Amino acid sequence: MKNNRLCDLLGIRYPIIQAGMVWVSTWQLAAAASNAGVLGTVGVGAMRPDAVKENIEKMFQNTDKPFAVNIPMLRADAADTANLVLDMGVKIIITSAGNPAKIVPLVKRPGVTVMHVVPSVRGAVKCQKEGVDAVICEGFEAGGHNSPDETTTMALVPQVADAVDIPVVAAGGIADGRGMAAAFALGAHGVQLGTRFIATQECNASQAYKQLIVDTPDTGTTILGRKYLMLRVIKNAFAETMAQAEKQGASVEELEKLLRDEGSRNKAASLDGDLENGTFQAGQSSGLVHDIPTVAELVQRLIREYEMAMQSLPVIMD
Amino acid sequence: MKNNRLCDLLGIRYPIIQAGMVWVSTWQLAAAASNAGVLGTVGVGAMRPDAVKENIEKMFQNTDKPFAVNIPMLRADAADTANLVLDMGVKIIITSAGNPAKIVPLVKRPGVTVMHVVPSVRGAVKCQKEGVDAVICEGFEAGGHNSPDETTTMALVPQVADAVDIPVVAAGGIADGRGMAAAFALGAHGVQLGTRFIATQECNASQAYKQLIVDTPDTGTTILGRKYLMLRVIKNAFAETMAQAEKQGASVEELEKLLRDEGSRNKAASLDGDLENGTFQAGQSSGLVHDIPTVAELVQRLIREYEMAMQSLPVIMD
Repeated sequence: MKNNRLCDLLGIRYPIIQAGMVWVSTWQLAAAASNAGVLGTVGVGAMRPDAVKENIEKMFQNTDKPFAVNIPMLRADAADTANLVLDMGVKIIITSAGNPAKIVPLVKRPGVTVMHVVPSVRGAVKCQKEGVDAVICEGFEAGGHNSPDETTTMALVPQVADAVDIPVVAAGGIADGRGMAAAFALGAHGVQLGTRFIATQECNASQAYKQLIVDTPDTGTTILGRKYLMLRVIKNAFAETMAQAEKQGASVEELEKLLRDEGSRNKAASLDGDLENGTFQAGQSSGLVHDIPTVAELVQRLIREYEMAMQSLPVIMD
Repeated sequence: MKNNRLCDLLGIRYPIIQAGMVWVSTWQLAAAASNAGVLGTVGVGAMRPDAVKENIEKMFQNTDKPFAVNIPMLRADAADTANLVLDMGVKIIITSAGNPAKIVPLVKRPGVTVMHVVPSVRGAVKCQKEGVDAVICEGFEAGGHNSPDETTTMALVPQVADAVDIPVVAAGGIADGRGMAAAFALGAHGVQLGTRFIATQECNASQAYKQLIVDTPDTGTTILGRKYLMLRVIKNAFAETMAQAEKQGASVEELEKLLRDEGSRNKAASLDGDLENGTFQAGQSSGLVHDIPTVAELVQRLIREYEMAMQSLPVIMD
């Protein structure tokens, strides 16, 4: 017997998804997450086909539990990547960015479950119409790529829950059991955590990245490239340079020149820990992260905290 | 016997605050709110001293329940206004914008309770140090004036709850009992709702304003004047004009000229319902507002929905 609709749909014990993230959700983190009873996710955003193949092989070798592959649809070879992982036997696909009407036919084979990340009610309704199995509602507080709609988790989740019948997953601003309980109260059937899972022992992120998340306060993230990129990162020297240029009215071309290759900057942050020049994608929930536990410790703690948060809700008498 | 710490502090039945709002939280709304068992708040932001006096007199005539006065500390005559209302016997003051170290001595007389609106952990800690009785944490999704920190309710509330011992009130993105339950799960002791209370029978706002909130979807608000004003309003022709000017790199001076007198525009929205030129302050929770009930109906519904949300939280089995 599973805990709720999302657990039933995905075949997992706890209604928690470890988010797919560029560079830092390789098989090491994803297998640990799946083995801990949540949905581990390999993020293939920056992987070449051989790396994709290796990561999926490692997943099958290291866990017998369900796991997902996250494919950002902005990739030129997104369809090829989808075929590659589906041919290898992957059963759960998470997609983001792009039109569900075009994505679903690419990834929806018999027995395959598809979840799509949305920033709005309109996007969620479209997903349901096109046959997506569950929507992940990502609020403005989330790390990484963000929607110009800027709708927050608190506002977005209940509105989406009212608009669709498929399971709803809340993402953005959640890093502990209190956030989980809040998401369920808002009408979600599960939660997706990204930032919190970077700061774990098993994650392949640089130690500097993990420690930076631990050290970042509530106001320590910012939107980089608001005019065109909408990327939530931890404030650092490079983010300040970009912010100053934007404030002084730099054009999109000037900003892109300043940024040059965001992929390299993200790699420099994720793997090399380049504190000055890297782009450290992370959410506003960084301020809730105070340690670097194992994934199993983290998951057990989330469940304990969730139960405490549930029990702490006051009975309001009339 | 009261329901929780915030109810005890304020002497109210339900841990809900009706937000003080410029133009649209006069005595009519505030008295109805207090009579319905929540904390009614008169917002004196746009009132001259004679209007302040009249509103407070009407409050004492129309309710025997506790109520608050919200004084934006940006007002040049904030200290005089505070003295006026305190001399008239007001016992609860809500302040926003400004340094608690300067505000508390102005408003903290024996038997007076002071709450301050904060956008960050740092602000909340400072409030506690200076003797503020409770903090209202306002997230980025809230209507009206907003912090450039842009921290959302979901991320802000648990971080503040961890940092202070005084009661914490969550504001921003909350318009129903699900949002209330979410706020409590995050560690809040109460909630403040603004947008939801505008769309009530008793509120003096124009019918057009109320209907606009009902009609606004999840993505229907925007930040006006991000470079200097940070005001969340409902998207309309004027907001689009400002957005275009900002996108094209207009200077702060040019934007201010375009905006001219924000007070007049807000009045035009609030009282005259000028859909094209007014600034309709409202939060992302507008998308959760579907009707215009009486305040008493709304409060009873909030409590029912809260109970349903509590009961809907899944027990997660190990």
